[in-house]
Amino acid sequence: MTRTLPIEPLTAEAFAPFGQVIEADQARSFLINAGRTRRFDALAIADCGAGGAAALSIFRGTPWPVPVRIAMLERHPLGSQAFVPMQRHAWLVVVAERPAPQACRAFLARGDQGIQIARGVWHHPLLALQPVHDFLVVDRKGPADNSGDNLEEHHFPAGDEVLLAPV
Amino acid sequence: MTRTLPIEPLTAEAFAPFGQVIEADQARSFLINAGRTRRFDALAIADCGAGGAAALSIFRGTPWPVPVRIAMLERHPLGSQAFVPMQRHAWLVVVAERPAPQACRAFLARGDQGIQIARGVWHHPLLALQPVHDFLVVDRKGPADNSGDNLEEHHFPAGDEVLLAPV
Repeated sequence: MTRTLPIEPLTAEAFAPFGQVIEADQARSFLINAGRTRRFDALAIADCGAGGAAALSIFRGTPWPVPVRIAMLERHPLGSQAFVPMQRHAWLVVVAERPAPQACRAFLARGDQGIQIARGVWHHPLLALQPVHDFLVVDRKGPADNSGDNLEEHHFPAGDEVLLAPV
Repeated sequence: MTRTLPIEPLTAEAFAPFGQVIEADQARSFLINAGRTRRFDALAIADCGAGGAAALSIFRGTPWPVPVRIAMLERHPLGSQAFVPMQRHAWLVVVAERPAPQACRAFLARGDQGIQIARGVWHHPLLALQPVHDFLVVDRKGPADNSGDNLEEHHFPAGDEVLLAPV
């Protein structure tokens, strides 16, 4: 069957089973640089596993056709993956505690909210809402001989899909 | 004496002695996510040294008084430090191959350009140009007992300073 998934606001509490929200509104911050910079410190720690390093990449996202059809999920068993908007546009996040249509949850991220998806957490590929939206991505770069081991995909059975409610 | 430092455009070539420019205009990119995302891959690799991990923080920068007076530099001997704008505003970078006024170089970064400062490279604290400008920062989080070892500061002698030319 086809389900329609409601869109939840992205909050640190709601996202906690899946990872961290990277945003500047938390109480744990302090001034540095002679008071000219406020540091919101260590909102996430990259988890790159043994033999991995944290790579900084840019993902240039484009929108999926509306209504967005969630037909597959992926996960990275060897490391975390963070997405932080480089322009202040809202975007969508779909994650799941197990790779099944009925487990999917969808969050609307504000343009000043990034996320770090914890190692091994199922998620949909990047869901931009603007024609072009750049994100800084921090994820694991491993030795060339095993980098392919850091991606698993799960495709839902035909007809058993999820449609996202309109934003 | 007081020197006035010209402002150079930020390019990967000019910045190479100091680290990497994190930007999406390089040839080495490829499509992922069924063609809906272009990945500009591994533009920088965080260098966190032994016992360190890559932490993701937000730095909320505010401007320095104009003309900007460069009176000190700092460096992080244990790891790299990356700055990536979360809003598309231009900003300034000051770096130096040694901690001396005559070694300083100033770069104007576009709003779609981040940088990673290599481990041990002298630099000025964040120089925002807008009233509020948020950056994602990726730098080393070490064990609590030695995190203070990752900062060295060098203050120039009084009167031997650098003023930035107007942007």
